[in-house]
Amino acid sequence: MQIGLIGLGKMGYNLALNLRDHNHEVVAFDIAKETTDAIAKEGVVPAYTIPEVAQKLSGRKAVWIMVPAGDPVDAVIEQLVPHLNKGDIIIDGGNSNFKDSVKRAEVLKASGIYLLDCGTSGGLTGARNGACTMIGGEDDAFAYCEQIFKDVSVEKGYLHVGKSGSGHFVKMIHNGVEYGMMQAIAEGFEVLHKSDFDMDYKEVARVWNHGSVVRSWLMELVENAFRKDPELSGIKGIMHSSGEGKWTVETALDMQVATPVIAMSLLMRYRSYETDTFSGKVVAALRNEFGGHKVEKAD
Amino acid sequence: MQIGLIGLGKMGYNLALNLRDHNHEVVAFDIAKETTDAIAKEGVVPAYTIPEVAQKLSGRKAVWIMVPAGDPVDAVIEQLVPHLNKGDIIIDGGNSNFKDSVKRAEVLKASGIYLLDCGTSGGLTGARNGACTMIGGEDDAFAYCEQIFKDVSVEKGYLHVGKSGSGHFVKMIHNGVEYGMMQAIAEGFEVLHKSDFDMDYKEVARVWNHGSVVRSWLMELVENAFRKDPELSGIKGIMHSSGEGKWTVETALDMQVATPVIAMSLLMRYRSYETDTFSGKVVAALRNEFGGHKVEKAD
Repeated sequence: MQIGLIGLGKMGYNLALNLRDHNHEVVAFDIAKETTDAIAKEGVVPAYTIPEVAQKLSGRKAVWIMVPAGDPVDAVIEQLVPHLNKGDIIIDGGNSNFKDSVKRAEVLKASGIYLLDCGTSGGLTGARNGACTMIGGEDDAFAYCEQIFKDVSVEKGYLHVGKSGSGHFVKMIHNGVEYGMMQAIAEGFEVLHKSDFDMDYKEVARVWNHGSVVRSWLMELVENAFRKDPELSGIKGIMHSSGEGKWTVETALDMQVATPVIAMSLLMRYRSYETDTFSGKVVAALRNEFGGHKVEKAD
Repeated sequence: MQIGLIGLGKMGYNLALNLRDHNHEVVAFDIAKETTDAIAKEGVVPAYTIPEVAQKLSGRKAVWIMVPAGDPVDAVIEQLVPHLNKGDIIIDGGNSNFKDSVKRAEVLKASGIYLLDCGTSGGLTGARNGACTMIGGEDDAFAYCEQIFKDVSVEKGYLHVGKSGSGHFVKMIHNGVEYGMMQAIAEGFEVLHKSDFDMDYKEVARVWNHGSVVRSWLMELVENAFRKDPELSGIKGIMHSSGEGKWTVETALDMQVATPVIAMSLLMRYRSYETDTFSGKVVAALRNEFGGHKVEKAD
């Protein structure tokens, strides 16, 4: 089918190629003209403005937007809506907060336009060769776009979760689970690394990936990482995050749900930004005040 | 090759069949005579005492012991050693504490007997059809038994980690990682369960297993569990543990390594034993004392 695609970043660009490979007619726009030019050479129809995307689609229109969460999503929707008709569908395939998706779907519905919120997992290779997609929104809109989700996902890799917001909600929780799994794996290797046993971490990851209980895609990625750099000596242990772990914890707090491991995984990421901490100074100072315990002087 | 096997519990019994399928001549003993009788009907040579296991083996002997960690391992070794010769090998395939394995290997070495400590993962189906094995101990002993480890494991699923103790050490850390991964997955489903979104958990687990970052054997097991019981309403959320998570945390504490997620996963298991807590009473009492906040009266 025909589909518009707005946003050709790392995920969007790969998604465009994936859709093209499945014989969809993709009309794509990126804010960077040279990226749109590049995708035009790949058999994708270029559009140089957001309205042009809508204008190049005929019949009931579906437009997939793949831009950073927050204001960029609203900005794209604002420019797009005047060029859409009743029944048309916007798919937000980015990492929007599920609460925003619920609100946007409500607002758009007033104009007769559907929003499908689609959480997308699997990284760049997933976007290119088969992702995992979790979709929220109305049945009719989902049914119209189902072939799209089926085609961009691995086999059995798409799910219409439920009402609006549920796609991004499930994707958010997925990322929270991912934080906890990653931290658990990381702590295991930390203990191995500090132990007196000499071992080859890539071999440990390899054997854990064959027949053990902890075999997983993340463990395969760890194995790859150790293959490239046996002690990971080329990288710093600073763990950035892009927001979905924080939203998971915020949601758990709002709902008063105990999620200590996911919360701790997030806090350990924040701790990793620091080489020294003010809280550490406070504890050291207190031990000195009450017990005369030695403090380590700052340089 | 010929191999002795002592302990035909759920893991040992399956292991015996697995070894038999790979054309090894297994001489097996279990403390329960009827279990030894049962395995005898499966093409395994029965032995009705521990000395008999050793007596029925010829040449350089290898005996795999698969009994509960702790005293049972020492008891088996004590009965076995008088019937072994210099160069013979004991494989401890159970969940022994790595510190015990280090000590036992030292003691046995004084009699010229080798101990290989073999951590075994993959559960019952692993023992039967292909496990993941992590082996510690001397090169020569490992080389003599390598075909055994290769045959009972899935392809690429065995590793000679290093010196004595390292096999059980890596298996222990594996279990610690497993605790953290399980708790992370569980917390994710807890938030999904408490949310306002209606969803089918087995479908969520299914889609997460196809193309997502969190795809893993544990997620497949969760999917199976939800297929059998969509809301898990038939089971209580009491999380027992068998010791290796505790050992991982104790080891991390001894080494002063920060493993908050693995530790928290263990503590959440202990919390799951309680329906009410004394600590909860203390906090409620304190809030009442300083702020007059209402407490909930015990029945």
